[in-house]
Amino acid sequence: MLLDTSLLGAMATGCAVLGTGGGGETHAGLLIAQQALERYGPVDLITLDDLEDDDLVVPCGMTGAPTVCTEKIVGDDVGGLLIEAVEKLSGRQAACLMPIEIGGTNGLLPLAWAARTNRPLLDADGMGRAFPEVPQAIPHLAGVKPDPMVIADDRGQVITIRNLDVDWGERLVRSIAVTFGGSCVTSEFHMDAATARTATIPGSVSLAIRIGRAILECEQNPLQSLLAAVDGTSLITAKIADVERRTVGGFVRGSLEAEGTGDDHGRLLRIEFQNENLVAIEDGRVLASTPDLITVVDAETAHPIFTESLRYGQRICVLAMPSHPRWREPDALAVAGPRAFGYEFDYVRLEDLLARPL
Amino acid sequence: MLLDTSLLGAMATGCAVLGTGGGGETHAGLLIAQQALERYGPVDLITLDDLEDDDLVVPCGMTGAPTVCTEKIVGDDVGGLLIEAVEKLSGRQAACLMPIEIGGTNGLLPLAWAARTNRPLLDADGMGRAFPEVPQAIPHLAGVKPDPMVIADDRGQVITIRNLDVDWGERLVRSIAVTFGGSCVTSEFHMDAATARTATIPGSVSLAIRIGRAILECEQNPLQSLLAAVDGTSLITAKIADVERRTVGGFVRGSLEAEGTGDDHGRLLRIEFQNENLVAIEDGRVLASTPDLITVVDAETAHPIFTESLRYGQRICVLAMPSHPRWREPDALAVAGPRAFGYEFDYVRLEDLLARPL
Repeated sequence: MLLDTSLLGAMATGCAVLGTGGGGETHAGLLIAQQALERYGPVDLITLDDLEDDDLVVPCGMTGAPTVCTEKIVGDDVGGLLIEAVEKLSGRQAACLMPIEIGGTNGLLPLAWAARTNRPLLDADGMGRAFPEVPQAIPHLAGVKPDPMVIADDRGQVITIRNLDVDWGERLVRSIAVTFGGSCVTSEFHMDAATARTATIPGSVSLAIRIGRAILECEQNPLQSLLAAVDGTSLITAKIADVERRTVGGFVRGSLEAEGTGDDHGRLLRIEFQNENLVAIEDGRVLASTPDLITVVDAETAHPIFTESLRYGQRICVLAMPSHPRWREPDALAVAGPRAFGYEFDYVRLEDLLARPL
Repeated sequence: MLLDTSLLGAMATGCAVLGTGGGGETHAGLLIAQQALERYGPVDLITLDDLEDDDLVVPCGMTGAPTVCTEKIVGDDVGGLLIEAVEKLSGRQAACLMPIEIGGTNGLLPLAWAARTNRPLLDADGMGRAFPEVPQAIPHLAGVKPDPMVIADDRGQVITIRNLDVDWGERLVRSIAVTFGGSCVTSEFHMDAATARTATIPGSVSLAIRIGRAILECEQNPLQSLLAAVDGTSLITAKIADVERRTVGGFVRGSLEAEGTGDDHGRLLRIEFQNENLVAIEDGRVLASTPDLITVVDAETAHPIFTESLRYGQRICVLAMPSHPRWREPDALAVAGPRAFGYEFDYVRLEDLLARPL
């Protein structure tokens, strides 16, 4: 499948849904990808089946606070620098690039960089959504090392870190992102295709395009079309009553209060986020939690709204979608479940939460 | 000249004098160098004249807060990792290592690493003293780039940064040092010997040994012997009345108040420091300032006292020594004069300050 500019709108919208409020606002990524595709031509979207076992798969993306990524826009040159450094370190050419996370602008930047470096893009990613920290990735759960980590910024500086584990990777990339003004581009978890077959989530890019199309190509009821596409549930139709948001230590943290409207009048839903939406709570009861996906969309158009774009008075629906089954296993919940983010409750599957009587 | 353990005591003492309170407490560096020399044998101390023009000179040392360096001791393995990474990057063997700063423990660690890697040590350094920040180095003034910068820590992690300028080098190494717990080892300003002839301060290692011997080998009056060796002046003989010191952002900052004793009874001298002693002030009058050297020594033994070892009640002499002439030129004062550290006065040579009537 050839990715050209005609698919970008749908892909960006789908990435925004899967970004659950984070992963970076997609408008910037959309413009960067559009420019790169126009300049360097379309990109071949390949699947894991197209790869030989020892082909090099290069995950990549941006790290930092999404609020910063939206304003500190990086061109495709920095992606070229990044991939060049990875290939030099590993002594061979990348068979393909892969978004480390499909959610948000991070689903789009690897496409721009694939165009820039004339490499295919793999129809897979490392999360099936977006998560804020380095260890919160399927490759890590599968035993792939983040070593070597390559970091670049738009001033042309390239940093490589060797002999690091995933926790040091997180600490170092976070402090470097902060030093660079709040964000940087990174590549880690380099693996061969044989490993990638079990260490990634396949089909993420085409899923994003399908989700985006479900919204953009349905004029009658885009919300229902979206819910059908993602097997999702609307938790509430509401008006935003309060938003609290701060950018600290390379993260965006805060919360949202949504006052029910229409049939949901009288209800009050609270969403807490750290880059991504983490939990939805009503009257002390958890309605959905990480790693399941919680996305805020416009009540009319079903367009997803990023954490940094939430404003008082917006009319919204809060959607919840089941995460990829891999995230629901114990080792995955240990790095990305509610307790991994400091909450004092255990993960319960979205389906089970919704089946509970009110 | 062969550097063996018999010279270490004198060298460590001299490095401490030239460290002007900073550069890291030399006791740790002394032990590390001693162990390395015992394990790997003595190190050849060579001069710039011994080198061919295109020989690779590798400056190295530790970066971070001296208070941390004293407790977070690094072995010689990390030096081995550091030099190996530099040689791999530059594609050739180091002809010699060189202390980036002769002051403090940073004068001794390169000796340990030279023993560990079986490379000679150059009788020169990048400062002729110690300074806290990356741009405060003679190689920088001579136009040598800090690029590539190599950073290692005792967990075996190796970071390389390419395409960086000196200000980004300072920002990045500082945040990485803080992430690593307050310190890390670094190598930058790699240069060929032809460049090193005008971009370093020659003779620093042998000067440190001479200074140390002047103190250790004179039982009668080590203070006078020291002053003669460094062309120095005693600003005051005093008792420490107050010390204020905090470790922030990878630096130690604070001040010292010294109450005159004996002939100096009734005087009150204040020293302000950022890792190193920066200014000595009495009644609002500057008696000495960076880049000239201000070192606190024990009033009896003339042993230098590090910033982090200053304590209430210690009997001290405060010494001032003229800096290397290169530091007194306008471009050097711009990076290491009083205003570079935030003071609102211009540099005046120590000799001129001392010649002013009280």
